[in-house]
Amino acid sequence: MAKELTSRAENYAQWYNDLVLKADLAENSAVRGCMVIKPYGYSIWEKMQSVLDTRFKETGHQNAYFPLFIPKSFFAKEAKHVEGFAKECAIVTHYRLKTTSDGNIEVDPEAKLEEELIVRPTSETIIWNTYRNWIQSYRDLPILVNQWANVVRWEMRTRLFLRTAEFLWQEGHTAHATEEEAIEETQKMINVYADFAKDWLALPVHIGTKSDNERFAGAIETYAIEALMQDGKALQAGTSHFLGQNFAKAFDVKFLSKQNTEDYVWATSWGVSTRLMGALIMAHSDDNGLVLPPKLAPIQVVIVPIYKTDEQLVEISIRANEIADSLRKVGITVKYDGRDNQRPGYKFAEYEMKGIPVRIVIGPKDMEAGNCEIARRDTLEKYIISQQGVVEHISKLLNEIQQSIYNKALAFREANTYYADSFDEFKDIVENKPGFVWAHWDGTTETELLIQEKTKATLRCIPQADGEEGFCMVTGRKSKKRVLFAKAY
Amino acid sequence: MAKELTSRAENYAQWYNDLVLKADLAENSAVRGCMVIKPYGYSIWEKMQSVLDTRFKETGHQNAYFPLFIPKSFFAKEAKHVEGFAKECAIVTHYRLKTTSDGNIEVDPEAKLEEELIVRPTSETIIWNTYRNWIQSYRDLPILVNQWANVVRWEMRTRLFLRTAEFLWQEGHTAHATEEEAIEETQKMINVYADFAKDWLALPVHIGTKSDNERFAGAIETYAIEALMQDGKALQAGTSHFLGQNFAKAFDVKFLSKQNTEDYVWATSWGVSTRLMGALIMAHSDDNGLVLPPKLAPIQVVIVPIYKTDEQLVEISIRANEIADSLRKVGITVKYDGRDNQRPGYKFAEYEMKGIPVRIVIGPKDMEAGNCEIARRDTLEKYIISQQGVVEHISKLLNEIQQSIYNKALAFREANTYYADSFDEFKDIVENKPGFVWAHWDGTTETELLIQEKTKATLRCIPQADGEEGFCMVTGRKSKKRVLFAKAY
Repeated sequence: MAKELTSRAENYAQWYNDLVLKADLAENSAVRGCMVIKPYGYSIWEKMQSVLDTRFKETGHQNAYFPLFIPKSFFAKEAKHVEGFAKECAIVTHYRLKTTSDGNIEVDPEAKLEEELIVRPTSETIIWNTYRNWIQSYRDLPILVNQWANVVRWEMRTRLFLRTAEFLWQEGHTAHATEEEAIEETQKMINVYADFAKDWLALPVHIGTKSDNERFAGAIETYAIEALMQDGKALQAGTSHFLGQNFAKAFDVKFLSKQNTEDYVWATSWGVSTRLMGALIMAHSDDNGLVLPPKLAPIQVVIVPIYKTDEQLVEISIRANEIADSLRKVGITVKYDGRDNQRPGYKFAEYEMKGIPVRIVIGPKDMEAGNCEIARRDTLEKYIISQQGVVEHISKLLNEIQQSIYNKALAFREANTYYADSFDEFKDIVENKPGFVWAHWDGTTETELLIQEKTKATLRCIPQADGEEGFCMVTGRKSKKRVLFAKAY
Repeated sequence: MAKELTSRAENYAQWYNDLVLKADLAENSAVRGCMVIKPYGYSIWEKMQSVLDTRFKETGHQNAYFPLFIPKSFFAKEAKHVEGFAKECAIVTHYRLKTTSDGNIEVDPEAKLEEELIVRPTSETIIWNTYRNWIQSYRDLPILVNQWANVVRWEMRTRLFLRTAEFLWQEGHTAHATEEEAIEETQKMINVYADFAKDWLALPVHIGTKSDNERFAGAIETYAIEALMQDGKALQAGTSHFLGQNFAKAFDVKFLSKQNTEDYVWATSWGVSTRLMGALIMAHSDDNGLVLPPKLAPIQVVIVPIYKTDEQLVEISIRANEIADSLRKVGITVKYDGRDNQRPGYKFAEYEMKGIPVRIVIGPKDMEAGNCEIARRDTLEKYIISQQGVVEHISKLLNEIQQSIYNKALAFREANTYYADSFDEFKDIVENKPGFVWAHWDGTTETELLIQEKTKATLRCIPQADGEEGFCMVTGRKSKKRVLFAKAY
């Protein structure tokens, strides 16, 4: 089993793909564009799910489940929504196979659906059609619901985790009596995502709104978190949409207010997906494999014995298991790898590939001295400590690694963030220095598309806070603040 | 909001449907046969998921995720499997919609898939196609993988939770080096299900194997757990399949053994679904609504104040919240309902409908005396206790209710279990006394189908243990033991 990766410098895209495969995270399936998420990859996703789910519940949300299929006619009800999703959806047209006289299996032409069903690319339409029956008065509001589900978007060019035909996600769909409350919810949830990115993924993100051109199909305002990957490209890691009354109007969802007037309900939706796995990988990993923030690592510590004789192995195993147990008692997940059919070097490479944050190695000399060797995955540093203080040391170290990975990503982002004051400067930066570029823009879609056409950089987001005023780098028109550009995934 | 149910005696099917709707568990969606699982229903399902997932992990399994879609040709590879599932599947044939010149949305005929995709009704085929690349030698075995997923079976007659076109489930798919190990896994997992049914759902089940006729399409042996519902009909609540080498042969999955010989891999699959929600409801609930075993109740205790003045409400609320906090400290989930826009009677009916196991009521007189009223949902008993001992009392009571619900279901099953020694006797029982019937059968599909045709009762399962020998009630041929019959869902 060759575990060598293509280096990032040589071919970043190939490095990413190699890493996803070799760290046993995911692989392509026999179905075009659909991935298999392997147990190790899935266990990281489960950790993300668990943390997010807890946060959603702490902020008052409940989970529910809505159908996988959406009647075609539902899409037609919100004009911009259908425009945004119609070109990339899987469509169910029949409900039965049959065996032909020569033994082949074919679609039974007599089992054609009266109305075709779309495999959900997102669930606003089916959910707002449902909410119509749940909402009569302000007493029924707010509805704060989330669902964990699979969705399908028929992407033509796919990449594991980053862009797949089927992916896993959560989608929150909330209904409110007032515009203010809905906007507040939209902002609250983008902040939940940003905090999650920072505190768990160790990933600094910019929060901002999307331009008209990049907004979610059917939204009034889309908030996004944008992260920088090691190749200098941006990745949108989560979005939260203020939908106004668009879906309530499309699906006729009205409520009776406290003042006894009838009004359409205000809506939000927000989601993150298995794309976060891609962000996690690309933000921190290196040419030896995955680097995981300890808080998301399914295994935080691995203990590997080094020995020559069976007697040594027995002795080390007893001590290693004692250390493992004492670490588990303080909530650290530990694996002891006492396999005697693999050499230590092979094991080291395997756990580096899989991003286990800390490796403890115990050999015969360590046993004599009462020591063990600690290796940090993030920095690849190694040093000896006494076995006595191992629990306290590792507890501190895991926190330090979590913080250190974040700091490194933040420093990288700062080192790769530029300010452009003219379009020539902007073009030069985008071409030669991959990263984020802050620049003035006149606020029009026309200019945005021109920038995109000339540079391949896109407008990532517009910060909410006030900034320095200036002049659009393309048209020279007035601009209230700089906005964020980058080439993006 | 009228909360009255049709009584079970009047119309059991209607009672069930009313209850699912009025307890806010689920409802039919706009998509034929697909349900919406509402937040309260989903929170019960989440509890089931959490318990089962922990058990799966304790027994060595890991979660993963495989594609929603299965290429049509995969089905054709296992002959019995396609026969079993082809007639009830949703088929994706196109991947794009388009807007016509008159503004309608239609399926783009130019976006037709080369090979149609089946929305998974179960995942053996796509998973075994994947396992082919995961398995080379005995070192790669066993593979112990589970996935939580949605599946689609195009059922013509659907009922909420019991039989829906889309449902949620988990499906374990394991691969083994030996037949013995695979059989052991199959049996281990049916026992995990049986224990879960007993310990959490408070549901006694019979464990046994299915006849040739009722076996899973593609299995060598199917184990099932069978429970009795209050209308005397049986419900299959979980299955575990020994698949032999059928799928390994169909997908060419071989491994090199320790002895350096090549052999096909041995397989199992096992699953339970949101159908368990139907079992839970039908086993325990009554004409007032849902009855939940405390261990699966999202809210175990509700506290309702009774008061005339605002002053009383404030005073009671303070005490109620103290009690709630002290209950939470010992891990009990509590809701305090201090809403002042609903009368106590309304609240009582609502929480009875939703099956909250214990209600605590505190009124002004209780406050004076330092007492509170306890009401058990399962027996509808009410009595007064001192507020002092409430935590200890409720802790014990929840366990007692859990056990009592199980005992009641067991007593019901025993009271509705019969032994038939002739076919006339059998027919009489099936027609007049709904329940389980133990009878001798000659082991042939022919006789089984005749029994089914004449009585509508089906062979539920064949117990594993030896039993008394006898003679088939239909043909008089020798029989090694009695098998279990019932009309079934």
